[in-house]
Amino acid sequence: MNINLDNNADVSAIGTFFKENHSFVILSHCRPDGDAYGSAIGLGLVLKNLGKKVDAYIEEGLLEHFAFLPGASILKAPTEVAPDPQTKIITVDCSNIKRPGLFFESWNRPVDLNFDHHIDNTRFATLNVVEPQASSSCEVIFRCIEKLSLPCPKEAAANFYVGLLTDTNAFCFRSFPPETFELAAKLIRLGADPEFLSVCAFRNYPLSRFLLLREVLNQTHFVEEAKIAYYILTTDMYLKTGSNRGEAENFLYYLLMVKSVVVAFMLEELSPNLIRLSLRSSKDFDVRRIASKFGGGGHIRAAGARIKLDLEQAKKTVLSEIKALLD
Amino acid sequence: MNINLDNNADVSAIGTFFKENHSFVILSHCRPDGDAYGSAIGLGLVLKNLGKKVDAYIEEGLLEHFAFLPGASILKAPTEVAPDPQTKIITVDCSNIKRPGLFFESWNRPVDLNFDHHIDNTRFATLNVVEPQASSSCEVIFRCIEKLSLPCPKEAAANFYVGLLTDTNAFCFRSFPPETFELAAKLIRLGADPEFLSVCAFRNYPLSRFLLLREVLNQTHFVEEAKIAYYILTTDMYLKTGSNRGEAENFLYYLLMVKSVVVAFMLEELSPNLIRLSLRSSKDFDVRRIASKFGGGGHIRAAGARIKLDLEQAKKTVLSEIKALLD
Repeated sequence: MNINLDNNADVSAIGTFFKENHSFVILSHCRPDGDAYGSAIGLGLVLKNLGKKVDAYIEEGLLEHFAFLPGASILKAPTEVAPDPQTKIITVDCSNIKRPGLFFESWNRPVDLNFDHHIDNTRFATLNVVEPQASSSCEVIFRCIEKLSLPCPKEAAANFYVGLLTDTNAFCFRSFPPETFELAAKLIRLGADPEFLSVCAFRNYPLSRFLLLREVLNQTHFVEEAKIAYYILTTDMYLKTGSNRGEAENFLYYLLMVKSVVVAFMLEELSPNLIRLSLRSSKDFDVRRIASKFGGGGHIRAAGARIKLDLEQAKKTVLSEIKALLD
Repeated sequence: MNINLDNNADVSAIGTFFKENHSFVILSHCRPDGDAYGSAIGLGLVLKNLGKKVDAYIEEGLLEHFAFLPGASILKAPTEVAPDPQTKIITVDCSNIKRPGLFFESWNRPVDLNFDHHIDNTRFATLNVVEPQASSSCEVIFRCIEKLSLPCPKEAAANFYVGLLTDTNAFCFRSFPPETFELAAKLIRLGADPEFLSVCAFRNYPLSRFLLLREVLNQTHFVEEAKIAYYILTTDMYLKTGSNRGEAENFLYYLLMVKSVVVAFMLEELSPNLIRLSLRSSKDFDVRRIASKFGGGGHIRAAGARIKLDLEQAKKTVLSEIKALLD
């Protein structure tokens, strides 16, 4: 069943679901970001506050960068969560049934409720609350909680705020409705501290990430009158800086700060003939057209693929595909 | 007279001022930022829309980085603006009478109306609308326009949005009231496009700025268990990258992304024995305590000074002052 949050009968179906059940497991996706954590922990705290038994898990557990989230101890290791048949399964920020990961698959359980904002959500659950125009899954959940007049504790508000903040790149570089700002204002009134939370979300990196960023900028090339910018990430760069793969997220955005750059991409050798390609664009260049040539996909301005070539061949091929589409 | 926007009688004094006068010059400050431009152009467009004669100027004119602002042609060269005695003078985003610069001083004219949000505003005008808790001068002006029920054209809304966006660092790293988000939502409903405007404000840099950033990160040092980070900006770095002084703004924030860093500073040789010091901090370290040792000042987390020493001596002295206060 698809739930429309502007339809009262739909919303009360969610209210009944929360009311009639007493134990929940909340799952979010692998390679978690601020919205994955914020929506899982935030919803967990709201339900706990109603007296429910709640466990939450994300396969990687709590990454150090997100340890500041209040109430994060609600996250359990997958092995600690063994849902009995009465426990209801909720996924947040997962566009399809594969996103929570292999551990969840091994339970062989259907999903009862699915909160998400991805346009390609497959509506895999019994109840699906999917709002593609929302900034984040946190926004979808908070709107639903508001419609149900459920109390939102301060710690939950902080988690939802982090989802809004990080999924919108600090309210930049993507379109979102004015309601997103109105919800952010409500979350601040409920106790979310925008200064503290933005410092935690964006100024909370280890020195190794700074050193890796420096390496990446040093290895960045600009070609075609600086319409294309790219870098190649090597194992050497991780070793030299003491950093790890997770710390290299979002570096392509530094390349897009240059106004001439239309497409930015990076290549990383995963194994001798397997290269990870990540693409970002500004303006109206659809990077899915490049990713799809290699069997990948994504969004208009953010896409990726795996390329079965050696590094040098992969670089040449990607550059020539982009050049062909730039002309 | 100090105007309180929550007092109706005060607000109508501004209404009368706009109603009874027909020609205005709007001035903002030297070394202009997004709030200086946004507030001058935005207010200018609101008054023009009421049928008033309006000129605006900023001593540097329209910097290329801000050429995207709609209605920016309202900005005139200082020599083109010769206010007759009936023309009223309005300053925006200026904390004191020196901020509009030398050209304005040469007119020897009092300021009739002063819109600002700086805590140290000296209330130098006949009518002073100063709200230190507001995010930006754009927020102060837009609140006033709303109270007066004046129409706000789409292009004015875009300018005000840019002031909110840039003065809050994209709603990050400083505290602001929830009203800021509510006003941002209203500006979007009036036609400001948050995606387009954020791309223009933050991804609109020449390649030379990227190259300068790369140089700066390469020259950054971390000392005292990486609690202090600093770099020295040299003329060589500008020459090597083809950049200029204005492009080096805000680079200290990259150093503050490292979680251990409490204080970040930069030194730049202006002449052989005159060094510019710029300081930023995260957490609760008050950098004014350092700046004031050299006769400078500023805010708790952003301060600066001029140091009359050679570069090496200046570096040693600043480092030892910071170390003394860190312990």
